[in-house]
Amino acid sequence: MHSARPIAPVIPVNQRNIAFRPIGLDAARIVDGPWAQWQHDNRKVTMAHSFEWLERDGTIDNLRRLDPQAGDDRPRRGLWFTDSDLYKALEAVAWDSALEQSNERDALIADLAGIIGRAQQPDGYVNSFVQAGLDVRWDNLVKSHELYCMGHLIQAGIADRRATGRSELFTIAIKAADVIVEDFGGLRRDDTDGHEEIEMALVELYRETGERKYLEMAEQFVDVRGHGVLDASLHFDSAYYQDAIPVRDETTVTGHAVRAIYLLAGVVDLYLETGEKALLDAALEQWSSMTATKTYLTGAVGSRFAGEAFGDSYELPPDLAYGETCATIGNMMLSWRLLLATGQSRFADAFERGLYNLFAASTSIERTAFFYNNPAQRRAPYPAAPTDTRPLRADAPGTRPTWFECACCPPNIMRTIATLPAYLASNDDSGVQLHQFVAADLVFELGAGAVSLSVQTQYPLDGRVAITVTEAPDNPFTLSVRRPDWADALGVAINGGSVDVDATDAGYVPITRTWEAGDVLVIDIPMHPRLTVAHPAVDAVRGTVAIERGPVVYAFESVDQADDVDLNRVELLAERPLAERLGDVEGQETVLITAAGYLRDDTSWTGTGWHSRADAPPVDGRPVELVAIPYSLWANRGPSVMRIFVPEHR
Amino acid sequence: MHSARPIAPVIPVNQRNIAFRPIGLDAARIVDGPWAQWQHDNRKVTMAHSFEWLERDGTIDNLRRLDPQAGDDRPRRGLWFTDSDLYKALEAVAWDSALEQSNERDALIADLAGIIGRAQQPDGYVNSFVQAGLDVRWDNLVKSHELYCMGHLIQAGIADRRATGRSELFTIAIKAADVIVEDFGGLRRDDTDGHEEIEMALVELYRETGERKYLEMAEQFVDVRGHGVLDASLHFDSAYYQDAIPVRDETTVTGHAVRAIYLLAGVVDLYLETGEKALLDAALEQWSSMTATKTYLTGAVGSRFAGEAFGDSYELPPDLAYGETCATIGNMMLSWRLLLATGQSRFADAFERGLYNLFAASTSIERTAFFYNNPAQRRAPYPAAPTDTRPLRADAPGTRPTWFECACCPPNIMRTIATLPAYLASNDDSGVQLHQFVAADLVFELGAGAVSLSVQTQYPLDGRVAITVTEAPDNPFTLSVRRPDWADALGVAINGGSVDVDATDAGYVPITRTWEAGDVLVIDIPMHPRLTVAHPAVDAVRGTVAIERGPVVYAFESVDQADDVDLNRVELLAERPLAERLGDVEGQETVLITAAGYLRDDTSWTGTGWHSRADAPPVDGRPVELVAIPYSLWANRGPSVMRIFVPEHR
Repeated sequence: MHSARPIAPVIPVNQRNIAFRPIGLDAARIVDGPWAQWQHDNRKVTMAHSFEWLERDGTIDNLRRLDPQAGDDRPRRGLWFTDSDLYKALEAVAWDSALEQSNERDALIADLAGIIGRAQQPDGYVNSFVQAGLDVRWDNLVKSHELYCMGHLIQAGIADRRATGRSELFTIAIKAADVIVEDFGGLRRDDTDGHEEIEMALVELYRETGERKYLEMAEQFVDVRGHGVLDASLHFDSAYYQDAIPVRDETTVTGHAVRAIYLLAGVVDLYLETGEKALLDAALEQWSSMTATKTYLTGAVGSRFAGEAFGDSYELPPDLAYGETCATIGNMMLSWRLLLATGQSRFADAFERGLYNLFAASTSIERTAFFYNNPAQRRAPYPAAPTDTRPLRADAPGTRPTWFECACCPPNIMRTIATLPAYLASNDDSGVQLHQFVAADLVFELGAGAVSLSVQTQYPLDGRVAITVTEAPDNPFTLSVRRPDWADALGVAINGGSVDVDATDAGYVPITRTWEAGDVLVIDIPMHPRLTVAHPAVDAVRGTVAIERGPVVYAFESVDQADDVDLNRVELLAERPLAERLGDVEGQETVLITAAGYLRDDTSWTGTGWHSRADAPPVDGRPVELVAIPYSLWANRGPSVMRIFVPEHR
Repeated sequence: MHSARPIAPVIPVNQRNIAFRPIGLDAARIVDGPWAQWQHDNRKVTMAHSFEWLERDGTIDNLRRLDPQAGDDRPRRGLWFTDSDLYKALEAVAWDSALEQSNERDALIADLAGIIGRAQQPDGYVNSFVQAGLDVRWDNLVKSHELYCMGHLIQAGIADRRATGRSELFTIAIKAADVIVEDFGGLRRDDTDGHEEIEMALVELYRETGERKYLEMAEQFVDVRGHGVLDASLHFDSAYYQDAIPVRDETTVTGHAVRAIYLLAGVVDLYLETGEKALLDAALEQWSSMTATKTYLTGAVGSRFAGEAFGDSYELPPDLAYGETCATIGNMMLSWRLLLATGQSRFADAFERGLYNLFAASTSIERTAFFYNNPAQRRAPYPAAPTDTRPLRADAPGTRPTWFECACCPPNIMRTIATLPAYLASNDDSGVQLHQFVAADLVFELGAGAVSLSVQTQYPLDGRVAITVTEAPDNPFTLSVRRPDWADALGVAINGGSVDVDATDAGYVPITRTWEAGDVLVIDIPMHPRLTVAHPAVDAVRGTVAIERGPVVYAFESVDQADDVDLNRVELLAERPLAERLGDVEGQETVLITAAGYLRDDTSWTGTGWHSRADAPPVDGRPVELVAIPYSLWANRGPSVMRIFVPEHR
């Protein structure tokens, strides 16, 4: 049985501004399939791996050495914001404890809470970089990430409290929040952190404690930003920090992608509690602009290596895509909040696109290696990542590195996987909504009584989703299922009988009836492979097509092609059918797609990369077969050539 | 009358490995037209502007303060390699003194030579960063740029010696070179500088002095590189520094573009003196790979912002082009050396492409503002550059900045303009060669006697080049004129009579006869506008066309289009004729080109930047007229939208 307050990262307390109510990790359990496997591996493999690296790189020592009793005079190590890597990993372990308790992990959290508690200064401030004497408290906010790190500490404390009921880490988090309010609240300071994150954390702390001072503090941090309050003369410009234009006036996403998206997630959190419509409108406009003009097919956001930043509208070249993992995770967090606020399926669509593509591609099949930035095309096999060390920069080598000096992405992946069940479904006064198609057991408390569902599906291997009602109230309620934006009309059958029902404008197929235990709703989502084209203003992929099947974006990887097929020279015969077959990539069961291709022979082009159109060298070629795999599975079989969009042969 | 040794940057002394012999600034004078104007402005405007900034930023003070008598205890300012900015500016002033002597500039050079001389340590070492105590001599070569800076000092000293006959700066340069030989020569150290440049400088110093130790030192620096001798664990990888593969084994250009190209220029210098064929072969293979697969239509090289680096083959997206000005200047330097070594016109073609396009675009019409990196497409008008300060990073704002913290490009532009006459023509035993079509007076000393030519042309406004022989020996000689790679058969007339002559395989139209003073050779180069397409593997501009006319790449800039024409949505009707007319851009006379275009209405695309091909939203549109200007003139009328390649309307 689940508790009244859901165990999940986003639990709005003001019910007036919310369309859908979240469910918690106690009420949603992934029971089967690849996501269950990933959750298992996340728990057993990735978390152990990450704490090894956090020790090896000194991330934990950086806090240990601040214990006055420690007597550790070795220098602090690593980048100035490594505290946040530990806090995010802690948050992941805490959430995961709601799924599976273990004494070992309880001890880990207790140990780390002790270390952080002993490092924390009496007034609540804690930052291993500043306390090592390497900077001055609040003196260099444009760069220091102090509020960013403490925001992650607060989120970890809330996760531990919600998931396990423990108070030690939560008490530390409260103290940290209190020193922030003490030093910044009531406009005692009118600046903020160069990297957003504290906003989300403070709203959530308000939700957890009911203390309005935290909500007001979050609001202040949102309000002051955009007026050039950060000293942008040293590194990047104000736009990079979202400090050039107030967020309520901004119409698109600019600057550092993770920063811009974390800010918007905090802004929607604030709206959910305050109901200030201007905040929601700004977030909707910026999200819409991002989705229409600054998002790759894979769900990657932030095209630029320079500043890990958003580019201009339609600046989406695959070969120079940056696509930081944390940015897509951020968009999943933001989209979830917008889904709760609006009840519109497009936000669940965006969540799904990110989840099945960029997010899934970010991690190796073994779950111990990660892409920080995610290539969308690779023209040559790059050298494999080193196996026992980590790259210094956010480069993506030919295979996924095991860790990073800037280790923001792996713990972000960990906490997302740990909390994944909470993003599958929701409820409102009229019933329940299924957003993601994952084999899971779901429990909802409606006004009319409890609803329990058992979702069985192989999705996305096929499109059949069977939802068995295992508990239902006596009164009718609406069971709504998202119709994915890429899907034609869904097949709907209740207890074997076909039902004709259209999706709502909000994108959900609603079935209202008096459900009884044992009822089975089967949704058939058409899953044939399809060709996708990009908006005509995306110059970089003009005249090309990509293959998608269901929510899955496909990629061509050299290892799957005949030896003489150079993927840099292939085209696709778009009028010929695509064939699908079950297969596997390194043991991962999946659907492989075969396409009729054409291998271009452009060897008559020599000398220069351009030619007069009037007498351009003739290009010959021959038919070839091309094999595509899910993009998420690329780079698991050694360095390779890879591409998603392929020129259409004309 | 000119001296026996040409006054120019590259004067090989070994005649056995050279196809063409350079002429000097004393033997070539640009007499008229825009390049003469730019030389004037370079002298009167840009040089004054640059020395103002070199003072304002402390670049000169950084050396002044090292005078033991100076008593200046203010801290050193700026990046660690600012010495090189001053040395390159000094080199430019020195070369320019060969064109026009002035007491004021003589005094400037003497003053600066005094400052550098007083900063120089007794053994010859000089580096304002190390001597300020901010690093340890030769201790951090991967990053320190010590040999890079001293290489530029050596080049400045040689320029001053050649151009003016003075010895003060040259003596300082010799001392600097000697301490390098003392500390590194004979493999006393087996490492080298993270940024190539010293190789070219030392070969040239060998040429100037006849001292083989400088040639051997250059050879050692080339030989040790490529074996991982630089500590690449701190910042970039070995490939970035061209230290992963020995240059003789490398087959393409990789890593930091300016570094890779400067290395190759030094390698060709070394070949020219030693005759080691493997060096020439390596340089040819790498140059050919760069030109065929890693060069933009504008002559930009180095597509990546990350590391200012070369990308993979055909990784040439205009919207994320980096294209550092110094990299194209480097390619002009490299191409000139390869032209001397091989006598093949393709190297003069590459020089011309860089000169008329990226290089010309790098500088504002007023000649006081510069692009460090050069956009090849701009989808939105960026904010204008600040007018009285300089950006911190190498960003390209909406207009050209006046200076840079990393001020490598402006002095590189200055020295290129000052030495431009030396790149126009050459000679060999059989005669003389005209490479660039610039109104100039040229004097050659052939074995048979002196040849003087007066070149008159409005090129590239039109394609008529009239070459009047003003002095000739009694014996026949060959007057060769480059046939540009983009040109059809040239019209050739001697004294009004048409002559039928084909270009050689090397790309030159040779006319051998007993020339007499008063003879006029007229070359007519067809200059109609043409459409250019990119190699089919350049994904980023598939299905698009660009306009070129003669050597000039055209661009569409928003300021020239009707108000309702959004350049992000235009296409071009490729079968319709292009119209040209004389006009001007901010007073610069030029040829404007009008094309039949189509304005796409893709407003039915909403929501996402992709769509199923089967039911992609319909795209409508209407005919519009499009106006193109030379790419080199863009961004002179305020922030704008700009593009070179435009989709072909189908």
